[in-house]
Amino acid sequence: MNLASLPTPAALIDVARMQRNITRMQQRMDALGVRFRPHVKTTKCNEVVQAQLQAGASGITVSTLKEAEQFFAAGISDIVYAVGMAPTKLGQALALRRQGCNLKIVADSVVCAEAIVAFGQAQEECFDVWIEIDVDGHRSGIAPEDATLLAVGNVLHAGGMRIGGVIAHAGSSYDYDNDEALIAVAEQERAGCVRAAERLREAGLPCDVVSIGSTPTALRAEHLRGVTEVRAGVYAMFDLVMHNVGVNTMYEIALSVLTTVIGHQPEKGWAIVDAGWMAMSRDRGTQGRKHDFGYGQVCTEEGQVLEGYLMSGANQEHGILSRQGTPDAQIAEHLPIGTRLRILPNHACATGAQHQHYHAIAADGSVATWPRFNGW
Amino acid sequence: MNLASLPTPAALIDVARMQRNITRMQQRMDALGVRFRPHVKTTKCNEVVQAQLQAGASGITVSTLKEAEQFFAAGISDIVYAVGMAPTKLGQALALRRQGCNLKIVADSVVCAEAIVAFGQAQEECFDVWIEIDVDGHRSGIAPEDATLLAVGNVLHAGGMRIGGVIAHAGSSYDYDNDEALIAVAEQERAGCVRAAERLREAGLPCDVVSIGSTPTALRAEHLRGVTEVRAGVYAMFDLVMHNVGVNTMYEIALSVLTTVIGHQPEKGWAIVDAGWMAMSRDRGTQGRKHDFGYGQVCTEEGQVLEGYLMSGANQEHGILSRQGTPDAQIAEHLPIGTRLRILPNHACATGAQHQHYHAIAADGSVATWPRFNGW
Repeated sequence: MNLASLPTPAALIDVARMQRNITRMQQRMDALGVRFRPHVKTTKCNEVVQAQLQAGASGITVSTLKEAEQFFAAGISDIVYAVGMAPTKLGQALALRRQGCNLKIVADSVVCAEAIVAFGQAQEECFDVWIEIDVDGHRSGIAPEDATLLAVGNVLHAGGMRIGGVIAHAGSSYDYDNDEALIAVAEQERAGCVRAAERLREAGLPCDVVSIGSTPTALRAEHLRGVTEVRAGVYAMFDLVMHNVGVNTMYEIALSVLTTVIGHQPEKGWAIVDAGWMAMSRDRGTQGRKHDFGYGQVCTEEGQVLEGYLMSGANQEHGILSRQGTPDAQIAEHLPIGTRLRILPNHACATGAQHQHYHAIAADGSVATWPRFNGW
Repeated sequence: MNLASLPTPAALIDVARMQRNITRMQQRMDALGVRFRPHVKTTKCNEVVQAQLQAGASGITVSTLKEAEQFFAAGISDIVYAVGMAPTKLGQALALRRQGCNLKIVADSVVCAEAIVAFGQAQEECFDVWIEIDVDGHRSGIAPEDATLLAVGNVLHAGGMRIGGVIAHAGSSYDYDNDEALIAVAEQERAGCVRAAERLREAGLPCDVVSIGSTPTALRAEHLRGVTEVRAGVYAMFDLVMHNVGVNTMYEIALSVLTTVIGHQPEKGWAIVDAGWMAMSRDRGTQGRKHDFGYGQVCTEEGQVLEGYLMSGANQEHGILSRQGTPDAQIAEHLPIGTRLRILPNHACATGAQHQHYHAIAADGSVATWPRFNGW
């Protein structure tokens, strides 16, 4: 199997780029003196995760309990499930812990903490619970100075659960596109989460772990004093959203979608390809940002960026490629039927999720099939 | 298994609604005197497709050769692959035909027609080729009056292939929201495709089938003179995009995503749920339309629409629910942690593709698991 023989559409991983991305992040975390816990939701792929662990990562972060189950079955035990615990999922979490998985769960409300305590006591299980901190108003979590923080801590502690630490994610960092703003939001993430840990400790509650992270803040933080570990996911692949944020070049994006030209509308300057949103995802994360890449950046089959050519439209199994600005009246000659191209994605997590396996292209041109999974 | 015991997130099909949608379309096609060939890309689910055939459909439309393979294995032989044929996929199409599948393929250029002829002659296979017609400038196809139409027809015919017919899809119909415009685009689709067939016949070329269709035009066409068959897919489920177009009420939408409330940000009026874009898809098809539903319309677990409550934001496994206009300061009381809700999707094809199976809820409350597939 080689690149030229792959059927299209197909999700490709450039293994050399992936390895460089993984090494870059791990070296940075080592230099900053923190543990690194990759978020595996980006790829849900054991080969990628093994490369992350090989590089020095400590444990993993998951977005579903299915990820926890799959990666525990693959031999990984130190897992944090970084989504607020639904009380109805406690049985599934318990089953993992009873099998020996060192699973950590997350809470950000008294109601949730009480449900964990009630279930834990009934099952005689001391859950390891991390309290979610809201550092930027992005989504979930308790603000560092909010009274709820100690209330949740007290419920867990008095109820016999283990408060393992605090956990924050500066999701708003995706909205910035200059280093000054990224450095500021990284510091806000660090300071807010450290402050929450201090408040818990001042109240006599345990709080060993201070866990923060997002790809942009991890790559731009000036220091991480008080932090014990960082989480990030998309950095292993990178994508056009992260390129807009300013943390990677186009030639560092390790994920792309291989496609074939199947037709043209020459008077419009369109080439039609066999990758639509089913292969790219519907993610339009660069819309309204520094540079709108449509559904993706067009590259040659070998990966050379075709400057100005984007997937400007997508239906389920059709993509429309066009040149920005002046339409390319000769597009049928430039990209004839049968031409194979790579499309760089807006969002590696969303594009990966449209596929059941990756085709991993090694530096020597050999191709391996790396399965991934989806679902819950 | 019943609704209350399903883990979340989960894709639900309301079977009674689905059956009514299927019956409505089939009765309309019967009244208009045309065959109906459902597009199975919406659900990729054998149980749904069997219900469509049971109601009177003749054959199916597919968007990938994998769909053709899967449904041929399930006993369906009359299949049109409605995406322009990539020359490299001809071997896969040949294999299906050699197994007895009555597969029709599509071409819209001389280059593609020549590739089909060359491959067909080399393999001694008379492919059944439908010529794609562009009726609205939406995507692929040859304009009805374009000289290319006869050129493609002549290449196929002289090369010993069978010209089975012409095929058009008025994809632009999704952009309208009033009946007058829909009736006009439906007539444009019909007239353009019929005209292309007439031109082929006038040139002495065969053209038995005149195949058109999209859910909006199928439901709004005033007559279908000269048309032999109609294709449509999303009508079986319907969705919020189609609701904006004006062809279904919210209570006719058969697909929804079941989710659980896992937290709140009360001062913002947010409830956080365990369905994010991984469960809903990234499709924002109602953005910029008559009514923007965000990532979906919130309903109770039983399916009652909660007027004004939308999934206003989505991360991978987190959805943010909020009330439009004035935030709901009591959202934590109205939708406490553990509350189960259904979310109606923007786009049934995209949301379905995020799941590996549907949970089909029958009128008596019983739940069946209906597998679907993805990939190529």
